[in-house]
Amino acid sequence: MKFNQIKTPALIVDLEAMESNLRGMANFFADRPCKLRPHFKNHKAPLLARKQVRAGAIGMTCATTREAEILVEHGITSILIANEIAGQEKAEHVADLSRRASVMVCVDNCHSIRDLAVAHRNRRVPAEVLIDIDIGLNRCGVAPGQAVLDLARYALDQSLTVRGIMGYDGHLQAMPPSPERDEAVRHGSKSIVESATLLEGIGIPAPIRSTGGTGTYAVSGGYSGITEIQAGSYLLMDDIYANRGAPFRRSLTVLATVISTRGREHAVLDCGVKAISGERGLPALKDLPGAHLTALHAEHAIIKTDPNYPPLTPGQKVEVWVHYGDATVNLHSRMYGVCHGEVTEIIPIER
Amino acid sequence: MKFNQIKTPALIVDLEAMESNLRGMANFFADRPCKLRPHFKNHKAPLLARKQVRAGAIGMTCATTREAEILVEHGITSILIANEIAGQEKAEHVADLSRRASVMVCVDNCHSIRDLAVAHRNRRVPAEVLIDIDIGLNRCGVAPGQAVLDLARYALDQSLTVRGIMGYDGHLQAMPPSPERDEAVRHGSKSIVESATLLEGIGIPAPIRSTGGTGTYAVSGGYSGITEIQAGSYLLMDDIYANRGAPFRRSLTVLATVISTRGREHAVLDCGVKAISGERGLPALKDLPGAHLTALHAEHAIIKTDPNYPPLTPGQKVEVWVHYGDATVNLHSRMYGVCHGEVTEIIPIER
Repeated sequence: MKFNQIKTPALIVDLEAMESNLRGMANFFADRPCKLRPHFKNHKAPLLARKQVRAGAIGMTCATTREAEILVEHGITSILIANEIAGQEKAEHVADLSRRASVMVCVDNCHSIRDLAVAHRNRRVPAEVLIDIDIGLNRCGVAPGQAVLDLARYALDQSLTVRGIMGYDGHLQAMPPSPERDEAVRHGSKSIVESATLLEGIGIPAPIRSTGGTGTYAVSGGYSGITEIQAGSYLLMDDIYANRGAPFRRSLTVLATVISTRGREHAVLDCGVKAISGERGLPALKDLPGAHLTALHAEHAIIKTDPNYPPLTPGQKVEVWVHYGDATVNLHSRMYGVCHGEVTEIIPIER
Repeated sequence: MKFNQIKTPALIVDLEAMESNLRGMANFFADRPCKLRPHFKNHKAPLLARKQVRAGAIGMTCATTREAEILVEHGITSILIANEIAGQEKAEHVADLSRRASVMVCVDNCHSIRDLAVAHRNRRVPAEVLIDIDIGLNRCGVAPGQAVLDLARYALDQSLTVRGIMGYDGHLQAMPPSPERDEAVRHGSKSIVESATLLEGIGIPAPIRSTGGTGTYAVSGGYSGITEIQAGSYLLMDDIYANRGAPFRRSLTVLATVISTRGREHAVLDCGVKAISGERGLPALKDLPGAHLTALHAEHAIIKTDPNYPPLTPGQKVEVWVHYGDATVNLHSRMYGVCHGEVTEIIPIER
């Protein structure tokens, strides 16, 4: 099938760009002590997770127990839930998954530790945790230092296995590359390594030190003592990361159809916020000089066109670059993998 | 099941509030010549569509051929696609559905008319269209007046059946009630009725005149000559419409869990933009005085709490009011219908 025969709106992935990103990141990690455990939350596609593992990733990172479940069901055997979970139901979910794969989860409070302990004890499986430390994002995580020791001791008291330290530098992903940003990344990595060293100082092995994203992997991935990087957006990329200078190719667009025009300056596409996210800014049009998107409604995108360019026509197909990949992929149940204008692969998205 | 045992994040509907909205709107239309054909795009739940039809709605309005397909599959026999469609595939989709139900679609250009004509001719089913006129939203639709006549004549030439006029006053939905807004609503309704009269003046029956939303139904629904109203958000409601003074109860929340806290002022929930839309503004917390949401990440909501109130605890369940219903419902595959704290109904959402 030609890709412009797909029913719109549809999520399109340029397979050549994606494969280039896959290889590029794999090459970066090929000869380093630090390894890649890519984040699943960006693409939610088990097929792509398996590609990443075949390319050298040591397992997958994810954000929710549901994502961990999808990964287990698709044969991924080593999973890090790089997030807190809370409540008995979620703790039981993790414990159930731990029977089928190695599933580590992050902790930053005693409530979750107790819930995990009960659930894993009841199921007679070990609970593996990383201590989450805040390295500046100001979201989850305890402060580096004494709080790490206190929490790790409490986890051990509850019979959990502490495997190391996790800290996510999400606030630095948004900064364009600069010496100041790199210095801040190193500062975060240093906190993680020091926290792991603190644990080892009291006899708790902490072999896993996880951090980094698509904006920062090159710095934290080279920092001595960091053992794994969580970057995920690199594979498909979006405009947010491209605008920040990450060295990967954008592969994701939404294919849409012009459904209405007025004069030479106004056109409407059949893709609104239910098909492409506007949560972090308006998306840009691909290969359509003189035209830009001015608004996203629920089901429509409004385009303003320069009257000096050829006008758009109802029925015409238009590609829109995905601005915010995480929130856009989540709106679709499949991606159409396209190579030289042909759909060669349909990639299911699991939600 | 108690509703706070549901795995979070989850979309919750307060059934009592929803039923009250259903009855309230049905009562408004009970003794009027104008009828309700509620929009499906807000809830995408066939079960709720059937409730609306049982309560007196004359059929359903929708935005896409996919939604029309879902409605046909669930036994709705009279459907208005209150939107333009374009391209051969979509025209064929409408024609296929027209074999199974009455499906009207809006047109504002000759390209779509030609595509619809070919598809319906090939399948030997009549194509029923409404002429879409722009009544100030500045999105789709032709200008009232001569353009309506020209397009209707072209549609007849192509053997389509013109059933009337559609105009959506989306720009007025956003305004709080005022005499000026009501005057603008009446002005839009007048354009629609006049356009229908123009058609009838040249011998084209135009019995259907459709407009209106949850913000404007009370005015356009009472305007002489308007025959049906498209309001859909009234059933579940969201904060956008509630803040504008629509006389219905909010029924929709997202149930979330506190997964992390820091001190007495900072907490994190497990619901980000993948579970609740921030496209039109940040959602508000339900029944949590002294606390408010300050940011939505992909998977997290950040809460600031007043230290004079009881602190939040990891594991605690929190309800968040849905700010933008359309874009939030679209993120879920089911709603949990809750009555007096018990889940009594699971309502599938079709996407």
